[in-house]
Amino acid sequence: MEYIKIKNADKIVKDSPYVVNNPSVYKNKWHKEAFKNNNPIYLELGMGRGDFIIDMAKTYPNINFIGLEVNDSQMVNAINRLQKENLKNLKLINIDANEVANIFGKEIDTIYLTFCDPWPKKIDERRRFTHESFLKLYDRIFKKNKHIILKTDNKGFFAYSLETLSGYWYTFERVSLDLHHDEYPIKNIMTNYEKQYFKEGRPIYYLDAKFEG
Amino acid sequence: MEYIKIKNADKIVKDSPYVVNNPSVYKNKWHKEAFKNNNPIYLELGMGRGDFIIDMAKTYPNINFIGLEVNDSQMVNAINRLQKENLKNLKLINIDANEVANIFGKEIDTIYLTFCDPWPKKIDERRRFTHESFLKLYDRIFKKNKHIILKTDNKGFFAYSLETLSGYWYTFERVSLDLHHDEYPIKNIMTNYEKQYFKEGRPIYYLDAKFEG
Repeated sequence: MEYIKIKNADKIVKDSPYVVNNPSVYKNKWHKEAFKNNNPIYLELGMGRGDFIIDMAKTYPNINFIGLEVNDSQMVNAINRLQKENLKNLKLINIDANEVANIFGKEIDTIYLTFCDPWPKKIDERRRFTHESFLKLYDRIFKKNKHIILKTDNKGFFAYSLETLSGYWYTFERVSLDLHHDEYPIKNIMTNYEKQYFKEGRPIYYLDAKFEG
Repeated sequence: MEYIKIKNADKIVKDSPYVVNNPSVYKNKWHKEAFKNNNPIYLELGMGRGDFIIDMAKTYPNINFIGLEVNDSQMVNAINRLQKENLKNLKLINIDANEVANIFGKEIDTIYLTFCDPWPKKIDERRRFTHESFLKLYDRIFKKNKHIILKTDNKGFFAYSLETLSGYWYTFERVSLDLHHDEYPIKNIMTNYEKQYFKEGRPIYYLDAKFEG
């Protein structure tokens, strides 16, 4: 995907009070020193423009949210939206998802993977956020139980994720092949992409996967 | 579903050389006394008109196939088609799937669940072939490793099955949300329903689930 490059994005990101600039400093101290509470921490990898995580943080004030995004122009969109908000339970980090184990100890409760890049080519398989190498990385940051919530419109990536997660002994609490028209409604906040896909009537695939350690 | 009731269906079923009339006699002796070989046994629950299992038996002569069907009129359709065939590796049984543990010991290698009734109402959940009570039943007839192949056009039933099977520690070797248009083609013989759905362009959901004991 290509994004509109925002001028001075790096500076805007650096100066935002929502952005944690030296995130590795907080490793093993996110509760105590970053959020200053013991609420669970939910992490979104590749938050994009951040609509989902901002709405989540507004809806669930007793959960701490962290949004990761490697693209600084994308992050500026989130920062702009946050100027109207005062959310104590939200932090943003401008890094690559590969870096998560350098930034977090075993302190994450839930990881959200929402409309992440499906990397459809076989050669790019290792880049998919549900490749086994990522699942191993997540093991290093989950507190005790593992919990991944995944949403995508890409059926190939969804099927792939069902394979890798089940092969890694996750069990599936909830699966939907059409999140917005499921007979048993699932509590859901839409992402930016999702709002658009919903309008177009495209089905959204949803997975709530757990491993109780 | 309602079927055309065939006159004298019970007698036609009873007289067919393909049908095993007292199947419980063969419990723990299917290899030795029914098939007289040691080839793996693949079982289809609810074979309907039997197109799938007949084509499988013709394609894979070194595998033994058993088709179960509770409806005798449906079974007559299979018997009629078999009059032109001489398949030593196929047996049919006219019973309810609930009875499998009375008929088989630990001698089954693979169970096929193809386009089985999705029983969409919550009150009928226990009738679904992937309800935990069925998975427990299958445990009593699988040889050592468990292996289920499931095909359906019903997204609710497919999602449900992903939940129950993953919750029962099956892992998913292969998942497809569009069997006939998957980027990585899956070897497949179509069932009767499937041929029709394929023509209509409806996606078929496919699952190959294993548990290695």
